[in-house]
Formats: sequence, structure tokens, C-alpha cells
Amino acid sequence: PDILCAADYETVARAFIDPATLAYIAGGSGDERSLAANRQAFARRGVLPRLLRDVCGGHTRTALLGRPRAHPLLLAPVACQGLVHAHGEVHSARGAEATDTVMVASTLASCPLEEVAAVGGPRWFQLYMQPSREVTADLVRRAERVGFEAIVLTVDAPVQSPGRAARRAGFTLPESAGTANLAGYPAPEGRVLAPTQSRILDGMMREAPTAADLAWLMDVTGLPVLVKGVLRADDARALQRAGVAGLIVSNHGGRALDGVPASLDVLAAVRAAVGPGYPVLLDSGIRAGSDVFTALALGADAVLVGRLQMYALAVAGALGVAHMIRLLREELELCMALAGCATLADITPDLLCEAAPC
Amino acid sequence: PDILCAADYETVARAFIDPATLAYIAGGSGDERSLAANRQAFARRGVLPRLLRDVCGGHTRTALLGRPRAHPLLLAPVACQGLVHAHGEVHSARGAEATDTVMVASTLASCPLEEVAAVGGPRWFQLYMQPSREVTADLVRRAERVGFEAIVLTVDAPVQSPGRAARRAGFTLPESAGTANLAGYPAPEGRVLAPTQSRILDGMMREAPTAADLAWLMDVTGLPVLVKGVLRADDARALQRAGVAGLIVSNHGGRALDGVPASLDVLAAVRAAVGPGYPVLLDSGIRAGSDVFTALALGADAVLVGRLQMYALAVAGALGVAHMIRLLREELELCMALAGCATLADITPDLLCEAAPC
Amino acid sequence: PDILCAADYETVARAFIDPATLAYIAGGSGDERSLAANRQAFARRGVLPRLLRDVCGGHTRTALLGRPRAHPLLLAPVACQGLVHAHGEVHSARGAEATDTVMVASTLASCPLEEVAAVGGPRWFQLYMQPSREVTADLVRRAERVGFEAIVLTVDAPVQSPGRAARRAGFTLPESAGTANLAGYPAPEGRVLAPTQSRILDGMMREAPTAADLAWLMDVTGLPVLVKGVLRADDARALQRAGVAGLIVSNHGGRALDGVPASLDVLAAVRAAVGPGYPVLLDSGIRAGSDVFTALALGADAVLVGRLQMYALAVAGALGVAHMIRLLREELELCMALAGCATLADITPDLLCEAAPC
Amino acid sequence: PDILCAADYETVARAFIDPATLAYIAGGSGDERSLAANRQAFARRGVLPRLLRDVCGGHTRTALLGRPRAHPLLLAPVACQGLVHAHGEVHSARGAEATDTVMVASTLASCPLEEVAAVGGPRWFQLYMQPSREVTADLVRRAERVGFEAIVLTVDAPVQSPGRAARRAGFTLPESAGTANLAGYPAPEGRVLAPTQSRILDGMMREAPTAADLAWLMDVTGLPVLVKGVLRADDARALQRAGVAGLIVSNHGGRALDGVPASLDVLAAVRAAVGPGYPVLLDSGIRAGSDVFTALALGADAVLVGRLQMYALAVAGALGVAHMIRLLREELELCMALAGCATLADITPDLLCEAAPC
Ligand SMILES: Cc1cc2nc3c(=O)[nH]c(=O)nc-3n(C[C@H](O)[C@H](O)[C@H](O)COP(=O)(O)O)c2cc1C
Ligand SMILES: Cc1cc2nc3c(=O)[nH]c(=O)nc-3n(C[C@H](O)[C@H](O)[C@H](O)COP(=O)(O)O)c2cc1C
Ligand SMILES: Cc1cc2nc3c(=O)[nH]c(=O)nc-3n(C[C@H](O)[C@H](O)[C@H](O)COP(=O)(O)O)c2cc1C
Ligand SMILES: Cc1cc2nc3c(=O)[nH]c(=O)nc-3n(C[C@H](O)[C@H](O)[C@H](O)COP(=O)(O)O)c2cc1C
Repeated sequence: PDILCAADYETVARAFIDPATLAYIAGGSGDERSLAANRQAFARRGVLPRLLRDVCGGHTRTALLGRPRAHPLLLAPVACQGLVHAHGEVHSARGAEATDTVMVASTLASCPLEEVAAVGGPRWFQLYMQPSREVTADLVRRAERVGFEAIVLTVDAPVQSPGRAARRAGFTLPESAGTANLAGYPAPEGRVLAPTQSRILDGMMREAPTAADLAWLMDVTGLPVLVKGVLRADDARALQRAGVAGLIVSNHGGRALDGVPASLDVLAAVRAAVGPGYPVLLDSGIRAGSDVFTALALGADAVLVGRLQMYALAVAGALGVAHMIRLLREELELCMALAGCATLADITPDLLCEAAPC
Repeated sequence: PDILCAADYETVARAFIDPATLAYIAGGSGDERSLAANRQAFARRGVLPRLLRDVCGGHTRTALLGRPRAHPLLLAPVACQGLVHAHGEVHSARGAEATDTVMVASTLASCPLEEVAAVGGPRWFQLYMQPSREVTADLVRRAERVGFEAIVLTVDAPVQSPGRAARRAGFTLPESAGTANLAGYPAPEGRVLAPTQSRILDGMMREAPTAADLAWLMDVTGLPVLVKGVLRADDARALQRAGVAGLIVSNHGGRALDGVPASLDVLAAVRAAVGPGYPVLLDSGIRAGSDVFTALALGADAVLVGRLQMYALAVAGALGVAHMIRLLREELELCMALAGCATLADITPDLLCEAAPC
Repeated sequence: PDILCAADYETVARAFIDPATLAYIAGGSGDERSLAANRQAFARRGVLPRLLRDVCGGHTRTALLGRPRAHPLLLAPVACQGLVHAHGEVHSARGAEATDTVMVASTLASCPLEEVAAVGGPRWFQLYMQPSREVTADLVRRAERVGFEAIVLTVDAPVQSPGRAARRAGFTLPESAGTANLAGYPAPEGRVLAPTQSRILDGMMREAPTAADLAWLMDVTGLPVLVKGVLRADDARALQRAGVAGLIVSNHGGRALDGVPASLDVLAAVRAAVGPGYPVLLDSGIRAGSDVFTALALGADAVLVGRLQMYALAVAGALGVAHMIRLLREELELCMALAGCATLADITPDLLCEAAPC
Repeated sequence: PDILCAADYETVARAFIDPATLAYIAGGSGDERSLAANRQAFARRGVLPRLLRDVCGGHTRTALLGRPRAHPLLLAPVACQGLVHAHGEVHSARGAEATDTVMVASTLASCPLEEVAAVGGPRWFQLYMQPSREVTADLVRRAERVGFEAIVLTVDAPVQSPGRAARRAGFTLPESAGTANLAGYPAPEGRVLAPTQSRILDGMMREAPTAADLAWLMDVTGLPVLVKGVLRADDARALQRAGVAGLIVSNHGGRALDGVPASLDVLAAVRAAVGPGYPVLLDSGIRAGSDVFTALALGADAVLVGRLQMYALAVAGALGVAHMIRLLREELELCMALAGCATLADITPDLLCEAAPC
């Protein structure tokens, strides 16, 4: 009854998630500048509706990686969904399945990817490179085996830890959280750093994916590989040339390097770099159908939903996720209707305007 | 005694309207971004007065649709005035009549248009397209019959519902509110959507007016037709070419699609698109005579007053509305006097300057 | 002991002035946008100091209307100084005399201009045009007779009344406040307006000075005439051509038409319009020596101090005014020293930079 | 445990420093506009990371004045460290020594420069010109004798006093604070000003260094002389031509002339003026590794840390200082890693972007 719009799940979820976990989910890295920038980027853009268009019979259909989709919304890869709901990823997958939504399952899920696949909806697998190539290759093979349709390689968060707000609130990732997919593999061997070596540059960054790793991955798998975490136009073009199947413009919801711009603020430049027709998705900050509209107008083919997914999952499991997606979709349709757009293709950049500064 | 300026009616009205209804009237759609933008647009503009001009004998006279008017203020169409005053529209009409003000009566009034007309002041009829063309045509004929001088077709709010703040405050539109003009017509037949159809794009948007509907309307009536809700220069030019008698630049007071710019921020572009001499009015955010001055300087021929009308009506009925208009007019005159303008024609764009950002 | 800088008089004065009177003095007109703009205009400008200059032996000397002055500070015309101190203007004049400061005495003073003159410091007379030319001419003759060196014609405030904050606080100008100079003249005859005439455009604006009145005034007096209230470059050039002796760029401390820009924001344009060497002064918002520095860098020859004068007068009479001027002057000197300026002529525009937005 | 990042020392230090002293250390001059600008300048800049780079084996090594350094962080000259820790400068020097950090020891230290030198770490001497050239020359000779490697002449703060916040909090510099280096010299003879002379321009500015003084200093010493307090491009080029060994772009942490821009905001212009390869350092506002990254991207070779040094010293003496430097360095490395930079040379301006305005 309190949920009048998709964004309301954020408010309502506060009663369903303990404060430390909430701080972990809601928070961002560093000073949370990029986290804030994500929302501001949407707030700074307005819409200039076209009048008196006939939108009756319009729809939100589109195609992604060659397959028809009912709408341009995906569930972003979000680790450790067990933090807010037992069998979290399975519930998210059910919500996705019920609403014709692609679920992007995280490497660091609380449920193994086979269980997510068993739900049966459309699914992509989000990959974090592992210290050992054998393990990485095995993860990919398992995803292929159970019908994941694409690999999303996340490249913007090689070093990960809960943000300062979460740590101050006492949050620590439970031992086993996010290791369901990795159980059974040999533990990566510890490596001892020489005293002159850097804990960060030589230590944590060992597993950070490089261009060579990406090439290896595309060799290893027959599935289309998308790269998640793109913010620069030059990187975008290089990835396109390297044969990547698509890009996800993302700042990891403000959880990777703090100080990076809002995904939305670099979207147009990335789209311009790769030209029309090449798959470009966006996430970070999507809270309403009007945000989806804005992202599409600036060049995205579709958007991924991170935190709202966790909030809806916490509030009402699969039903919550499905309801949240339905609300977002109706909000998008309302926006299209009032702006005179019958189809996604009608959502052109000239419909946007700069919002008055506040 | 507390009312030193027209805007004070906003403050004082709080004691006269119950909180839920106040939330409905004061509120905007979505996140209320466009609502806020309306006021900011005025705040961002300043005046650069001309010195030592002789303004003695000056006046605020103008002409609208070929008829002389004492001043450039109109009462905007505001539905359901019964929410704040018994026989609300009749009182507003009396306030308008007493101050030589055009009242634009809403389709969704609490009193039938015949009662408004009986008061005798200058009046235009605001039209919402109805599901049936017969009903729409009948409404127009009734308006013609009782002396409404123009039809204002509102095109920016095909889907309407109280904003979230109002819904959270428990506001629901009373069953019969706003149906006085529609009583006696057959109820529109319900239509069942196919499962693949969209509640919004196929459902609610059925009655949304299209360019064809507008052409039909101009055929049906001999009255001049103005279009309310224009924000784009290209739409403005198209409407002018289509033979519309005038435009009302409006974002519905921030109550239609949220995220659209302030009316004031697009006014100059609309005026430039249609050229001088073509009727362009503005509403959304008018709270003071200086706002009227600013709108006129940016190209409006006149302005409409929405919420202030409801506030003044709630505080003191017809007297309140008349007093509010008188205050606004004197504030405008003071602004003209201090800026060295003897007539409305002297209010030129070079008198404006960008206000310092705050 | 609490007064570490000139601006502290503003804080300390709160204990010396009753709230309603304080609201009158501190307040501005309308929504107090121009009042706020005045301070923001200074806050938006920064200084880029020159390094390693020798400023030893520097000074703040200058010349105004052909006479040498020890510094570029004047006391602005401020009416009704009796509101905060018995014989207010006489005390201000003593403070001015003690610090080599030109006092600009207001037409609407609480003490007659002859008493101000008797103090003996340098003095100009601020003139408000009176309903009768005879009275106006007599005021000027009286000022000439007792040694006022210039006439400052204020043109930006033909209609005057306490701001809304003051009125809400219950402030009313005492009957006799500000009439000391006008006592003994016949009361202006009331004029009855025809019903179609405007209270403002035909009523209050009757006495508003026009270009013809200015020409008449320059004929009537042998003293140099400055015009106070200039904000537009075109007005500035016209006044220069008309033979005016100098301009005061002022928005009346945000007390005339609300919405006009900060004086400081139009100063450079006015200076550019009249060229170098022509007297241009500024007031509105001066609270610190750095403000004086900024105004001089943007083209002012000197600045006038309004509210700080009233605050210092309220706190400590003549001593307060003298102390406040001394603090302002030392703050200016400190600013000059740290910016590498030995004389006022060294305060050039290239020493300013835009301050970071906050 | 509460210290998750270098900036946390600021928060934690509040419990270790009495309020008046804290006000002195944390505060800035005047209205603290430049103080605020320093932080805002960093907040307005974002990073656009390069993807998929191999940063393994990267490092933060650099060279300053011809000597190899492990990282680009220095301890800024901060007077009177005895205010927060007994033998403050000695502890800072130990923290510096432990982390391979150049300590810039202040003329106004609480411990004599010989004691700082005895600690043994890399060290530069910050010089304030003294009233007598003999004293100044003797200070320099002492610094040379005990192995200081460079002289940093501070030129932006010829007049010094605690800010208003500190004075309001009751702070007064203890008699003997900051005189350890000057003990034993004859007291400068008082000079009596003529009544027409200015306390500031003729008084306090007597000792302000001039271009001639700088030339004399470079004659007197064989050590490289850097100038601290540079903000203008023209000054920068002139100093470079005069043979100065390097520049420190600094607004004294917002403690010199208030209203000057943030150091960061003028850095690029200074770098452009002197060209590549010439030593340009920066301080003012450094609180995190990302700030160091930003400064380096805009052209700095290294940065100095002022207040964080005092905070860390107050919290935990030498250990605190060393820990703070280690945190800053790791934060810088993390930033480099996530932005795809293996070495400082990879930190190029194209990695920066304007942050969304908030
Ligand atoms: C709790 C949480 C866990 C996340 N885990 C992953 C992950 O495992 N892999 C990944 O690529 N992105 C992960 N992300 C980032 C999301 O995929 C997505 O980029 C981000 O949440 C989008 O921003 P939004 O939350 O504002 O929608 C995570 C985000 C959150 C909030
Ligand atoms: C309570 C309320 C009801 C309204 N009803 C109508 C309506 O029936 N038809 C219409 O065209 N506009 C309607 N409007 C919009 C007004 O005509 C006008 O565009 C808007 O109020 C102008 O902004 P303002 O309130 O800031 O003056 C309504 C506005 C309010 C506040
Ligand atoms: C209480 C008060 C009375 C004033 N009276 C007059 C006046 O009689 N004549 C005039 O020209 N300006 C008058 N002014 C305006 C001042 O001359 C001056 O323009 C203004 O105060 C400058 O701004 P500041 O107060 O920020 O310094 C008055 C201002 C105040 C605050
Ligand atoms: C308490 C304090 C004392 C200082 N003393 C000196 C000094 O003696 N000599 C000097 O050149 N700079 C001095 N500075 C300025 C610093 O060297 C440096 O420019 C400034 O602190 C950098 O800004 P930050 O504090 O934001 O890092 C002092 C700064 C502070 C906070």
C-alpha cells in the first residue's frame, strides 16, 4: 500500500534489512561522490514532450544480442543476495522469469549458478576473473552448460571491500557469502610480497583483468562477452574493435573507484564512440521509469537495475522483484505516453532538455 | 492584515484547507521536479530598470483574441473548486468579473459551466477531450450557447491522478468531484484490454487528444481554439500552422509529466518560433507581479493564475479572488513603474538580466 | 572586544536595536533577492595576489570631484538615523569628520542638514525630488548655503515603504521620522485620482524624477550633481552625456525594486560605458575591506557604506562610526598589502578571479 | 580502529586537541572562503579510469630536486607543533624518516631546526624573512650546517595572526610558541610610525619579502631555493626566470589572504607557464590519496600535507604521522590501480573529468 512507485522499495526496505547490511547495500566507495553523482545526473536532465502524438498501440519491445525482449530492463549482477533473502538469487530469478526480464547472475552469488538456471528465465552470467585461469574457465563452462546466454565480464572493481559507512556500521561480509559458485575449487595459493612490493599494485591487483585476459576469455567461450564498467569513449571503441559483443556503461553503482563520473554523464560519449546499432547498456542510479527513459534517450539500448532489485527482494522476494519491474515498466510507459513516444525508437535525444539547476 | 502581497494567500490558505486537499492542490507529479523548476525559473531572472522615465499616465491595458482587456491576468482552469469553497467556480467567476479578468472554466469543474456563465464576466472554456466525440461536441456547444468566448484545449495531461504527496496524505478525489459538466452523459463504455496490451499505452492513452482530434475540434466549433500545455518550439509552430488561435505555454503547474522544464524556461523559444503578434500565454509558477513582468518580458501576452486562485478562493471566496488579482496587478504596476515602463509594450527583453546564482 | 572586523558591527548591533527597527534596517524589498545578490556578488569574486612587491610607503589616497581624499570610503545617505541614536546624523557626521570621510546626508534625515553641516566634516547632500519644485530648489539652496559640496540625486526609489519583514515585525516609520529637512514647507496638496487612474502609475509615481527634472536640477544648482541608483550601461552613458558629475552604481542596498542585479555585478559594464576617468562610485553590500578592494578592481573610484554605518552608530555613536571606518580602511590596506598593491591605482581587474562556486 | 582513511585523522584529532587550538589549526583567514575553496576544488574534479591495464609491478617512485623519492608526499611546514605534542617537530620528523618523506621544517617551529635535523630523515627548511638580514642569513647558515637540502621561502603570509574563529574561541599563541629557532637573536628594534604612516602598509609589511630579498637570499645560500605561495602564472614564470629551484603552489591552506582561489584551481595555469620538467609542488586541501592523484594529474610533481600532519601528530605522535602518510600513499596507489596507472607518469590530465555539480 505504501509502494506507489518503484523507488518506494528503497524506503520500505529499510524496515526489512538490518542497518549494517543496509549500509553495505546502499553505500558507495570512498566519499560516495560517484554514488551521489549517479542520482544527480538523472536529476539534471529533463524531458521536452511532443504533443498530440497518437501512442495507442505502442509498446516497449526491443531486441538484445539478437533476441526479442518485452522491455529494456535487466536485473544487474548483485552479489550475496542471501544477505536479504534466503535463496535470494533464486527468488530474483523467479521475479525475472515472471516479467520476461534477463537476470544477470553474479559470480559472487549466494546460490550456485545452476540453481539460478533451474528457474528457467532468460539469464546472463557475470564473471569476475579468478586467480587461476582454470577456475575461471570452469565457471564459464558451467554457465554455458546450464544455458546462460552471455558472459558479462566486470572490469571496474578488481579490489573490493565494503564502503566506509558499512564498515563503521559494523558490517563484515560473512565468511561464506558469495562463494557458492566457487565452492569446490582449490583455494588460491597465498603469495608473499617482497618488502619493496606494494600491497595494492603488486598484491590486490594481481587478479585484475587485463586486455590479455579478455582476449583469452573470448577464446575460451562461444558465448557473447559483454564488458561491464566502461566509462571512457576510447576504451569503448577499443573494446568494440576487440570483438566484444556489447558494453555496459557503469560505475558499479558508485561502488568502484570513487570520483568517477555518473554512468549517465558519459553515456552519450560512449554511444558516439561506438556508433549506432552496437549494444550499449547502462546501469547506476536507475530508480524510476523516467530514468530509463532518460538513459534510452541518451543512447542506451537497455538498463540494469541493481539496488532496487535487492530492496524489492528484501521486501517481498520473487513477488517484490516482479512487482518492482512491473512498476518500472509502467513508469517508463507513462513517460513514453506523455512524451509522445509509441516505441523505444521514438525516444530520441531531442526529447531531453537540461533541467533547471536547483 | 497578514496579506501584504498576492503570494501571502499561499501561506494564509494553509489554515483554510485540510492537509490532504492542500497536498493535492499544492503538489506536483512524480518527484515534483517541474514544480520546483517553475519557481526557480522566475528566481533566476532579474530586472534591469531604466532610469528617469516618465511613467505617469501609464496603464496595463492590452487586447486578447481581439478584445480589449484591462490587464494581462487570467484565472487558469482549475478543476474541482468545490474542494475549497461551496460553489467554488461561481465565486471565482465573481472575483474575475469584479476585476475585469477572463476566467478559464475547467471541464472538470464542480459547478456546471452554465452557472459560471450566469455570473456574467469574461470567460473561456477549458476542454478535456472525452471518450466520446458526441459528448465532447456537446460540451463545446453548451459553452458556445452560454457565451464562452474561446475554447482552451488542454493537451498535456491525458493521464491524471493526485500526486504522491497527496496520496500519502490520504487524499482521494471525491466520487462526484469535477463531474458537474459531465452529469447526464452516458458513462463511457469500459473497454477490456487484451493481455498483451499495455494498461497505459493502450488503456489510459485512448482519450489522449491527437492532431486529428484537434482538427476535428476546430471544425466543430466557431470559437477560437487555444492549445494549453505547449513546451516545444516545433510543436508551437505546427499548431500555429494548423490554425490554432493561440498557445498557452504551460507545464500544468508541474502536475503533468514530471521532469519537463519550467514553462518560463521555454517561453522565449516558443515566442521566437511563432513570431510576434501571435497570442502566446503562460502559466505555471506565477506568484507575484514581478513574475508577470518577467513572463511578459520574455514574450507572453498574458499569464494565467492557477494555485493562487484556489488559495484566495479558500480564504475569502469571490472577495479573495478579486483581492488577489488586484494585488497581483498592483505589484505588476509597481514593477513597471520602477523599471520605467508606462505600458506593457515597454516591457522588453532587454529589461531582464540573469539573477546571480544562489 | 567582540569587534574583530567591520562586519562584526552587524552582529553586535542586534543587541542595540529593537527587532522591528532592525528588520527595517537590515531588510530589503520584495523577496529580498537583490539584498542577497549583493553579498553573493562579492562572494563570487576572488583575488589573485601579486607576489614579492614592495608596498612599503603605500597609501589609500585618492581624489573625488577634484578634491583629495585620504581613502575611498564614504558614508552612504541613510534616512532616519534617529531610529538608532539620538541626533544620529550629527554623530555620523562626527565619525566621518574624525576619519576624513565624506558624509552623504539624506533628505530624509532625522536632523536638519544645517546641524550636520555644523559638525564640519566633508559633506554631500542626497536629494529626493519633492512634489513641489520650489521646495526642492529650497532644499538645494540650503545645502549650498551651509557648504555641502555636491548633490546626490537618488533616482531608484520613487516609491518607498518598509519591506515585508519589517512590516511583519510590526515596524512603522514614526510620523515625524525623516522630516526634519522638510519641516516648515507647506504640505503637498493631496491629489484625487480618477477611478480609471492607477494608484501606482498615476499616484505614487507623480514625484518620481524624470530626465526633465534632472536637467532642471542641474540648472538650479552650481554644485556638481551625481546620480545614485544607476545599474544600466545605457543609462550611465546618457547621464554622462547629460553632464552629470558622476554616478553611483547602487541598488539601494536591495531596498528598491527587488530582482535587480547586485550593484557589483553591473559595475564593470557601467565603467566600460563611461570610460576611465569619469567618477563612478558603488554601494550595496560593502561589509569588509576586501569588498572595497573588489569594487575598486572592477572600476569603482570609491564606495559608500550604508547599513554598517547604522550598525556602528547604534553600537557606539560617533565613535562607532569612526571605528568602523578605520577597520574597513585597515582591512582594505591589508588586502592591498597581501595582493601587492601600494596604491589604489594598483588595484587592477587582473587581480580578480572568479571564486570557486560553493 | 576508527581510522579507515587518512582523512579520519581530522575527525579523531578533535578528541586530542583543545577547542581553541583546534580552531587555530583547522581555521582559515577572513571568512574562510579560500579554506572552503580548497576542498571544493578537489570535489569538483573526477577521474575517468582506463580499463584493463596491467598495473602489476607499478610503483610511486619519483625524483625531487635531483634526488630519488619513494613517493610524492611531503610534510608541509607547520609552525608551533608543540601546540599538539611535546617535541612536536621531532616526532613529525621521525614519522617522516620512517616513511621516506621529506619534512619541511618551519622557521616558526617549537623545536630548533638542529633537533629536527638530528632525527636524520630527508629535510628542507622553510624560511620566513626576518627583520634583520643578519638573522635571516644566520638561519640559513644553520640549516645548511645540519644538512637541510633546500630552502623554501614562504612569500604569501607576511602578516600573520590567528583567524577570527580561533580568536573567538579564545586562542592566543603562547608567548614563546614558534620562537625556538629565533631564540638568542637580538629582538628586532621597534620602529615608530609617523602619524601619516599606515600601520599595515608601512608597519607590518616592512618585513614582507620583495623580489630584491629573494635575489639576496639566492646569493647568500648554495642550497636550492623554492618559493612557497605561488598562485599566478606570471609570478611563476618570473620566479622561474629569476633562478628559483621550484615552486609551491599554495594558498597557505586558506590561511593567508582570504578570497584567493584554491591552489588546485590555479595549478594547471602555473604548470603551463613554467613548462614541463620544472619542479612544481602543491599544497592546500590534501586529505586523501585521490586528492594527490588529482594534483598530480593537473601538473604537480608532489604535494605537501599540512593539517593532516598536525592531526596525526596530535593523535599518535611519530607513529600517527607515519601511519597517516602510509594511508595516503596506499590510497594513492589504489587510485592509480583502479585508474590504470602503473607509475606517476601515467597520471595524465586526460584521466580527469569535471565532477557533476552538487
Ligand atoms: C550489494 C551490491 C552488490 C553488487 N555485486 C556486484 C557483482 O557481484 N558484480 C557486478 O558486476 N556488479 C555488482 N554490483 C554492481 C551492480 O551490478 C550495478 O552495477 C549497480 O548496482 C548499479 O547501480 P544501482 O544500484 O544504482 O542500480 C553490486 C551492487 C550492489 C549494490
Ligand atoms: C488543483 C488544480 C487543478 C487543475 N485543474 C486543471 C484543469 O482542470 N484543466 C487544466 O487545463 N489545468 C488544470 N490545472 C492546471 C492549471 O490550469 C495551471 O496550468 C497551473 O495551475 C498553473 O500553475 P500555478 O498553479 O503555479 O499557477 C490545475 C491545477 C491545479 C493546481
Ligand atoms: C535604513 C536605510 C535608509 C536608507 N535611506 C536612504 C536615503 O534616504 N536615501 C538614499 O539615497 N539611500 C538610502 N538608503 C540606501 C543607502 O544609501 C545605500 O544605497 C545602501 O544602504 C547601500 O547598501 P548597504 O546597506 O549594503 O551598504 C538607505 C539604506 C538603509 C539601509
Ligand atoms: C597550524 C598551521 C601552521 C602553519 N605554519 C606554517 C609555517 O610556519 N610556514 C609555512 O610556510 N606554512 C605554514 N602553514 C601552511 C602549510 O605549510 C600549508 O601550506 C597548508 O597547511 C596546506 O594546507 P592543508 O593544511 O590543507 O594541507 C601552516 C599551516 C597550519 C595549518
